[in-house]
Amino acid sequence: MYEINETHDPNLKSWVESANDPSTDFPIQNLPFCVYEFGDTEPVLGIGFIIGDKILDIYGCINDELMQNEAIAQFASFRFWTLNAIAGFAPGVLSDLRRQAVYLLSEKNKDRVAIAEHLYSISDVRFEAAFKTGDYTDFYCSIYHATNVGSMFRPDNPLMPNYKYIPIGYHGRASSIVVSGTDIKRPHGQNRSDAEKPPVFIPCKNLDYEMELGFFVGKGNEMGQPILMSEAENHIFGVCLVNDFLAKNFATTISPYVVTMEALAPFRTKAFERDTDDPQPLGYLNDEGNKNFGGLDINLEVYIQSEKMRNENIEPHLLSRSNTKDLYWTIGQMLTHHASGGCNLQTGDLMATGTVSGKEKHERGCLLELTWRGTEPLELPSGEQRRFLEDGDEIIMKGFCEREGFRRIGLGECRGRILPAD
Amino acid sequence: MYEINETHDPNLKSWVESANDPSTDFPIQNLPFCVYEFGDTEPVLGIGFIIGDKILDIYGCINDELMQNEAIAQFASFRFWTLNAIAGFAPGVLSDLRRQAVYLLSEKNKDRVAIAEHLYSISDVRFEAAFKTGDYTDFYCSIYHATNVGSMFRPDNPLMPNYKYIPIGYHGRASSIVVSGTDIKRPHGQNRSDAEKPPVFIPCKNLDYEMELGFFVGKGNEMGQPILMSEAENHIFGVCLVNDFLAKNFATTISPYVVTMEALAPFRTKAFERDTDDPQPLGYLNDEGNKNFGGLDINLEVYIQSEKMRNENIEPHLLSRSNTKDLYWTIGQMLTHHASGGCNLQTGDLMATGTVSGKEKHERGCLLELTWRGTEPLELPSGEQRRFLEDGDEIIMKGFCEREGFRRIGLGECRGRILPAD
Repeated sequence: MYEINETHDPNLKSWVESANDPSTDFPIQNLPFCVYEFGDTEPVLGIGFIIGDKILDIYGCINDELMQNEAIAQFASFRFWTLNAIAGFAPGVLSDLRRQAVYLLSEKNKDRVAIAEHLYSISDVRFEAAFKTGDYTDFYCSIYHATNVGSMFRPDNPLMPNYKYIPIGYHGRASSIVVSGTDIKRPHGQNRSDAEKPPVFIPCKNLDYEMELGFFVGKGNEMGQPILMSEAENHIFGVCLVNDFLAKNFATTISPYVVTMEALAPFRTKAFERDTDDPQPLGYLNDEGNKNFGGLDINLEVYIQSEKMRNENIEPHLLSRSNTKDLYWTIGQMLTHHASGGCNLQTGDLMATGTVSGKEKHERGCLLELTWRGTEPLELPSGEQRRFLEDGDEIIMKGFCEREGFRRIGLGECRGRILPAD
Repeated sequence: MYEINETHDPNLKSWVESANDPSTDFPIQNLPFCVYEFGDTEPVLGIGFIIGDKILDIYGCINDELMQNEAIAQFASFRFWTLNAIAGFAPGVLSDLRRQAVYLLSEKNKDRVAIAEHLYSISDVRFEAAFKTGDYTDFYCSIYHATNVGSMFRPDNPLMPNYKYIPIGYHGRASSIVVSGTDIKRPHGQNRSDAEKPPVFIPCKNLDYEMELGFFVGKGNEMGQPILMSEAENHIFGVCLVNDFLAKNFATTISPYVVTMEALAPFRTKAFERDTDDPQPLGYLNDEGNKNFGGLDINLEVYIQSEKMRNENIEPHLLSRSNTKDLYWTIGQMLTHHASGGCNLQTGDLMATGTVSGKEKHERGCLLELTWRGTEPLELPSGEQRRFLEDGDEIIMKGFCEREGFRRIGLGECRGRILPAD
């Protein structure tokens, strides 16, 4: 686990002016990784660090010897990258690369001309998914979400008896992971609203979003070789925002920026405090030594903008604000549990926490909870009502970390707009 | 869907003598694809057709212009292949390649010296998984299996009400797909045998196999573009044997030979005959025009050989024999349903039918059913009993097709031996 170090110094400023704007998600203390495509006629893919409204191209910096890293340099001879190529290196290698970028971009560095040649404007590129993901696993680790959903479908027994023992996860669909901004076509599915009649195959009526935190596997493990709790975070490359549209396999949207575990070091917080009558995690999930820092203090916000709102220039409307510190299991526990049966994790695998909801009503991370299965519709500033998503709605997710004495950092945005079914 | 053609002629013989042995799985009428590794010091990967106890190397044949295929030739300039590189071509391209191989290997062809240079002995190679699989989906399409398992866990309501409307599938884990012959280490997991006490983390007690048929996606579909029922089989490349070891993510074993849909043409049979009071499939799953050929007549056998049996030279013991014609849904319906919500399938995706069980007791495709959750142990010829798998047990699955007037073809074997937990 990363400690707070000089890269987190709040007084550090960059000569890239936009990075010093107090409202930016991407100050020099953050530097998330991304994969982007640049140019129209013969577009090239690159990996870079986000800084303010710019991208520092890593390939260019290594090729021009502005950055030195032996492990990574061997991959720099070709440009067609995803983060998979480098994310399997030990955390120290990637940390070293990030420190070099902090140095190159800091105000103190006066040698800027050569570096500026490798800066692109975010507005000039198209982002791609940062990883080619082999397997995607969606957990269900918000106890508030699980209790709310359980109350609707199993009122007598909202929380399954294994919930406090096992970080429950489901295999997801990797092929339909798309990057923020990709339009989402409303899917068809079988629907049976009248129990007396057969189901019908119609466009989905109760289309929902799910506000989740995602994390990518860096270094993998061999099949049959579990990952110790004390090693778990050495296998986590970084985090992103995830919108796991329901029903599960037609689309999962991710934000393009991967915020590293090192950048998140100041925003670690204690793991969920269990009630005194709650069971302690079994030995293989015991993270007692790390209990004050196992959690993550990341604010998650969900906004909606309907087509009518867009047409009337009404700003996106805040639906909820929740926080990953309310998750019952830490991301380290999710990862260790996943590998505990010997399952081999691979660089680029995506895990997501499941819908992140808090205790309060305004902290509910999906419409199913916010409208209580559609029974309590929401009012939008346009005068419209919402039970579930309508065609033309855009969902905008944001994530950010704030702590006194530290620079605010953000996860950027994760957007998806609903198109009508065919 | 392929029609029976001259490649299925039972009188066709090969100059590769072993292919004419009546007991072989791999006569000239079959020619499954495979991916193999050859050589020790600088091993190379290749794709080939299996013929008798030999492999015909496709790369070599194309490079020496013994086979001509423009679409495939462009991939022949490099040797490091999986089937993904070619399986996305239209079925006609692959069928053309298979016909050329039939011609080259047939008894009628006297020009054999150049071809013989591209034949390897199966015993000299190591097989690899034929595809790099992006996503793996496991269906649950045997109504006998579903009813048996349902009876154990929900005696009042064995078959869920949606069973006869939806080909139920679960996302699986792609990273842990391994090829036949890979040892399987017994996984750890949480176990709670005493409801009064907390669960414990121990080696899995009720380890089981599941006898399934797998099929690989050839041509994929774009996200948001469903696959019509009439087009479904154009997206299926071929089939293999699958052992989906329980509990779901630590290992799934596949046989290395991919038997093409063309080779299976003589063994198509009518789809499952629904009872008169059973619902008809909804429109998007309606395959009425194909009802006499939607099914597959493939015999599936499971054998066990314990460590004691191996030590005492006792042959593997037959546990069950079932047949894919007893599946409630066809593989075409599984595929069409999978894509019906707009999910994008990709070349190399693996789908499996779920445990294939028949109506009779000897047709049950897993130990859970055969021993009725361990309550009716099996006797092995060594005098041992089995409720679930023990360390040292090897499970051997076989698949084959027989029909009067046609040459028997087989799917080969799918083997996995259980190693003790760490």
